[in-house]
Amino acid sequence: MSRIRLGMVGGGSDAFIGAVHRIASRIDDHYELVAGALSSTPERSKESGAALGLDPARTYGSFDEMAEAEAARDDGIEAVSIVTPNHMHYPAARAFLSRGIHVICDKPLTATDDHADAMAQAVADSDALFVLTHNYTGYPMIRQARDMVAAGTLGQIRIVQMEYPQDWMMGSPEQDGVKQAEWRTDPERSGAGGAIGDIGTHAFNLGGFVTGLTATELAADLHSFGKGRVLDDNAHIMLRFEGGARGMLWCSQVAAGCENGLRLRIYGEKGGLEWGQEDPNYLWFTPQGESTRRITRNGPEASEASTSVSRIPPGHPEGYLEGFANIYTEAAAAIRAVQGGESRDAVMGKLPGIRAGLEGMAFIRACVASSKGNAAWTKI
Amino acid sequence: MSRIRLGMVGGGSDAFIGAVHRIASRIDDHYELVAGALSSTPERSKESGAALGLDPARTYGSFDEMAEAEAARDDGIEAVSIVTPNHMHYPAARAFLSRGIHVICDKPLTATDDHADAMAQAVADSDALFVLTHNYTGYPMIRQARDMVAAGTLGQIRIVQMEYPQDWMMGSPEQDGVKQAEWRTDPERSGAGGAIGDIGTHAFNLGGFVTGLTATELAADLHSFGKGRVLDDNAHIMLRFEGGARGMLWCSQVAAGCENGLRLRIYGEKGGLEWGQEDPNYLWFTPQGESTRRITRNGPEASEASTSVSRIPPGHPEGYLEGFANIYTEAAAAIRAVQGGESRDAVMGKLPGIRAGLEGMAFIRACVASSKGNAAWTKI
Amino acid sequence: MSRIRLGMVGGGSDAFIGAVHRIASRIDDHYELVAGALSSTPERSKESGAALGLDPARTYGSFDEMAEAEAARDDGIEAVSIVTPNHMHYPAARAFLSRGIHVICDKPLTATDDHADAMAQAVADSDALFVLTHNYTGYPMIRQARDMVAAGTLGQIRIVQMEYPQDWMMGSPEQDGVKQAEWRTDPERSGAGGAIGDIGTHAFNLGGFVTGLTATELAADLHSFGKGRVLDDNAHIMLRFEGGARGMLWCSQVAAGCENGLRLRIYGEKGGLEWGQEDPNYLWFTPQGESTRRITRNGPEASEASTSVSRIPPGHPEGYLEGFANIYTEAAAAIRAVQGGESRDAVMGKLPGIRAGLEGMAFIRACVASSKGNAAWTKI
Amino acid sequence: MSRIRLGMVGGGSDAFIGAVHRIASRIDDHYELVAGALSSTPERSKESGAALGLDPARTYGSFDEMAEAEAARDDGIEAVSIVTPNHMHYPAARAFLSRGIHVICDKPLTATDDHADAMAQAVADSDALFVLTHNYTGYPMIRQARDMVAAGTLGQIRIVQMEYPQDWMMGSPEQDGVKQAEWRTDPERSGAGGAIGDIGTHAFNLGGFVTGLTATELAADLHSFGKGRVLDDNAHIMLRFEGGARGMLWCSQVAAGCENGLRLRIYGEKGGLEWGQEDPNYLWFTPQGESTRRITRNGPEASEASTSVSRIPPGHPEGYLEGFANIYTEAAAAIRAVQGGESRDAVMGKLPGIRAGLEGMAFIRACVASSKGNAAWTKI
Repeated sequence: MSRIRLGMVGGGSDAFIGAVHRIASRIDDHYELVAGALSSTPERSKESGAALGLDPARTYGSFDEMAEAEAARDDGIEAVSIVTPNHMHYPAARAFLSRGIHVICDKPLTATDDHADAMAQAVADSDALFVLTHNYTGYPMIRQARDMVAAGTLGQIRIVQMEYPQDWMMGSPEQDGVKQAEWRTDPERSGAGGAIGDIGTHAFNLGGFVTGLTATELAADLHSFGKGRVLDDNAHIMLRFEGGARGMLWCSQVAAGCENGLRLRIYGEKGGLEWGQEDPNYLWFTPQGESTRRITRNGPEASEASTSVSRIPPGHPEGYLEGFANIYTEAAAAIRAVQGGESRDAVMGKLPGIRAGLEGMAFIRACVASSKGNAAWTKI
Repeated sequence: MSRIRLGMVGGGSDAFIGAVHRIASRIDDHYELVAGALSSTPERSKESGAALGLDPARTYGSFDEMAEAEAARDDGIEAVSIVTPNHMHYPAARAFLSRGIHVICDKPLTATDDHADAMAQAVADSDALFVLTHNYTGYPMIRQARDMVAAGTLGQIRIVQMEYPQDWMMGSPEQDGVKQAEWRTDPERSGAGGAIGDIGTHAFNLGGFVTGLTATELAADLHSFGKGRVLDDNAHIMLRFEGGARGMLWCSQVAAGCENGLRLRIYGEKGGLEWGQEDPNYLWFTPQGESTRRITRNGPEASEASTSVSRIPPGHPEGYLEGFANIYTEAAAAIRAVQGGESRDAVMGKLPGIRAGLEGMAFIRACVASSKGNAAWTKI
Repeated sequence: MSRIRLGMVGGGSDAFIGAVHRIASRIDDHYELVAGALSSTPERSKESGAALGLDPARTYGSFDEMAEAEAARDDGIEAVSIVTPNHMHYPAARAFLSRGIHVICDKPLTATDDHADAMAQAVADSDALFVLTHNYTGYPMIRQARDMVAAGTLGQIRIVQMEYPQDWMMGSPEQDGVKQAEWRTDPERSGAGGAIGDIGTHAFNLGGFVTGLTATELAADLHSFGKGRVLDDNAHIMLRFEGGARGMLWCSQVAAGCENGLRLRIYGEKGGLEWGQEDPNYLWFTPQGESTRRITRNGPEASEASTSVSRIPPGHPEGYLEGFANIYTEAAAAIRAVQGGESRDAVMGKLPGIRAGLEGMAFIRACVASSKGNAAWTKI
Repeated sequence: MSRIRLGMVGGGSDAFIGAVHRIASRIDDHYELVAGALSSTPERSKESGAALGLDPARTYGSFDEMAEAEAARDDGIEAVSIVTPNHMHYPAARAFLSRGIHVICDKPLTATDDHADAMAQAVADSDALFVLTHNYTGYPMIRQARDMVAAGTLGQIRIVQMEYPQDWMMGSPEQDGVKQAEWRTDPERSGAGGAIGDIGTHAFNLGGFVTGLTATELAADLHSFGKGRVLDDNAHIMLRFEGGARGMLWCSQVAAGCENGLRLRIYGEKGGLEWGQEDPNYLWFTPQGESTRRITRNGPEASEASTSVSRIPPGHPEGYLEGFANIYTEAAAAIRAVQGGESRDAVMGKLPGIRAGLEGMAFIRACVASSKGNAAWTKI
């Protein structure tokens, strides 16, 4: 099976996440990067393209140019990865969706609600797939956790504890020339959410992905500890879910000693689960009245939900890039399936798409509104 | 130095915490248990006294009888430990305080606010000491954490994450004859707080003890998951502190896999600390921009604050009983000091007393009020 | 039941292990320390006795004096704890054994083989009990491990990995005035073994205690890394057991970052167990082809072997002192039983005694001989 | 820069390690797999090639055919990965080396010493590079550990503890149709070493890589616990190093609960290091007299030695495949360098090659000889 021809918008040399997408696309060998509009300035874009070995003729100065040119080629890109700051997600995605090119887009969906609505419309108007890289859903043991909850192993879910602390925004990196911090702290490019948009959405998405529960309302206390920082860098959130479960979500970018401490703890009538992103090959499971078990990826109690997205034996750790690659690999299968005539809805499976994106935007919107109302309960 | 003559109210054979107090009182050899009113029924009290080797003449049928008789003896008790269910704390304490006998009382302070006020008055009216066994403050690494915060090692505190999950109230132990569960789920004996009174107060107290910060308001979402349970068995709480710090507190008694998961994470402008009760000999410290360090009890970076309350070398674990014993040992020193003529206020040092008790009651009251108001912000 | 009247030889203010014995003797309230010969110099002994609140008339200048005087009293000591450097174990023990006073003695048994033989004779000639404080056998989860092996849960044992690394002898503490290091590095007082005697015997004893296997031969490579140090401070040992199991033992006192890293890993045909002294409340159990389980002290899969020697609920850690106290408590029961007329052999139960002591001496002897023979296989 | 054209010998659908090599070769985008002799039977080879999307014309029935045909093409492979059972390493490697095609070969070097000698000759006779995939040397924190030792951070090295336990050979997988177990337990295909060849060589190699020390002699006690198993499945080994360091190596394939427990602990005069393969993003460092520090990959105390081979931020775990990819990426750089005219010796850098392979064979040979001599000390 030949590789899917892939383009990329954003992801030049300064960027972190572009390289991640490229590696993720290569790991299972389903994509070939053949075109790019890798930077907002044409010169930088050319330089980055050259560094990646792209054909100079397919290194474009803008995503519009790229969309038009690639759509006109017989060997044009079949899919595009959008890895820009948030405010560019929608215009870039629209350019490709409108031409029937599949889109794999970084999260959160957009910087503004207007863009989110427009994005939803653009997806609706297109036949192309829209995949949002909520990459943590690709971790094998997250798949197993979801499967266990769905199978009723925990009984009815009661408590959902989510957290995602980091520490890289201690001090003032946005004033010290750290590009990653600059745009993330700028409402124009990032949107109304700081930590909640950047990492809170991940934790929120993951809680919903694993439990299958819909959060109905939240009370959020957002705060900015960084000097002169406008957007939140710490958020305390209480949540209520359909069916009566309660939860908490803490995200922070100023918690010393926390690197990417995404962690999920779920408790039901019959048992509990615990998982942490920094040690992702283990799922800790406690059936009520029994000892806690360390279920290992591809180990003796790993289920098909996790083994089917694992590559190597237990004890040989897979990590962040492999989890990310699972999203790309499932997107490739979905792309091949729609190319083969299957319906778009039928192929999305567990892949996060426009709905997850809109849920994330609703989460950000509710957090900001709640916090403005002194952490009043707010419908999501 | 001769041992302090100690009595005990409560703590018969069914009880868990009475035995803990007795061991704690013995570890550093400052007390001799010589009298008891160990149960609410005289027969049981006699039996328990005999099992403990008490003089039958000093095994009493009630705390009133004991207070009167012991106060009249030349060799009467100097101090009494009160380890009954919450609703008996005040009447028992008053009986001894009013006779000048020092009181070491289990937490929370009382079952009701009326009792709490009366207890405060009884303490004010007495010359005797009143010590509340917020025992977790006795852990050496908690002492070191408090000291580091006070010394400014973390800079201004920004975030205080407290949690105390358990799982022993999954199912319906109160209907299955578990005495510990029976009174704890009964508002008459336990008071208005379930999990928040039993374990939430511990987490709240510890957060304040270590940071030195006063929590000013909270928003609490209490819930009872246990069938037919009136009092909360799970609580999600957001907090705000004087000086701008924010925090969260989660306590639960229905979280499968959690035994006594009391955990504290504190983040300031310059660093972070993490400590867990189940692994109490380590304090994890991250100075901003450096690696996380595992500070061990009595190890190379242990400070006087922790080494002064440690007994054995690093790597030989001390545990819950030793931390509890530190409270008893410091209470002994305080008792000897007031007996020697020092003022009561001067000798309390780090010992939790009536103020900590009233703060705990205020916490419970605020939680219940907030939760009734749909988690509205409520002054503490 | 009245307390057993206890004396102590050694354990003055400079000593570490004396205080441990005293606390261990108090925890479960079976002993009362009433007499002591706490130091090798009479003045120091008096001072230490005063600090402990002993009756000056029963604070003796030597163990001989104490043995004679106490044996003559109606209320004389019933048992004595011997916590001197190794070379004094035998003369002290003999003085009491010969007078029918029960002996609780620190390990290793003696400094020399001659003393060991004499000690065996002294025990044989006496009706009194002789208990050797191989205290790690008192840890509840070690009891459970032993029980699981005995029940066949692991099938036939194949591999026994023992280790006990420390780091406190890095540098030259024996030249810097550290008393603990001085006598431990002095062959006159410590015997032929350095690390192997001090901590290797513990690991060796524990491996045998848990597996029930007898080690038949070993090959040992002893080494002294410390400048000018005569006795070993690091030992690598291979072992063979009756029935075909193989094992390794590593002990070291110069391994930076190791405090008291005693650890045991046991593998059989049907499963494996892992336990570490620094985190002693957990036993990690892997049945073949299943996930690893974290069995907690007093938790859902704790067996009677461990719960019977536990005091507090799971998640509230017990530590080194409680494990040590279990030896004292079982010794108290044995003492009361022989006082009540039971035979000495019948009451020892799991208590380590003269046999464990002789096995430890045989281990040291074999290690030294093997190492002199360039790690030749040597019968134990 | 265009990709290096890569062929593969072995690695058909049954194999585990072939897929690992392919992913590792893709992660940093330096290779394109264009040819293969993927199985020992031509039909299977064709099927596997088709499954991988190889040009059928370049899917060969044997490595000889492939070597000849590819060497004759203008666009023939520049490098070949050899991922067969051990006994095929030499004949396959020779076929390519003799044609100037660079070889990336799985370990151990060969099944027999004769083959090892012949391999050394074949490498000497060729201008092509020979890289042996001791992949664990590619882990970033292993690089940092090596760097710290070389910089003298630990002072002179005293103790080297190596271990690699697994449990997948409990029971009799080689009799249950597990291909991986079949050839590994067959001396014809695997060579004289069982566990020592398969995983012991990894631990041995890693100890030498990090410490820079040469092991001079060893005493090995090999054993087969598996029913009817000829080759060792458990090995206890003591080692002595140039300069006086001592060490131990334990490897096992029958230790329940161990998946790929490769672990390295190194102690010097001034500090200690600990690293485990199952949690590879952390390096635990203890400077003498200070607290242990958790150094994280790409974190605040990560050095250039580790950051230069890392891809993503700290807290986002990299794993086994990324470590393996580092070997491929450094091999690509070396290949491009020799193609650009640099000398073969100059470009190998930290890459394991023929010398590491011969050292591994010497280790296996010494282990087997020593064990036959009842664990006599044997020169390596």
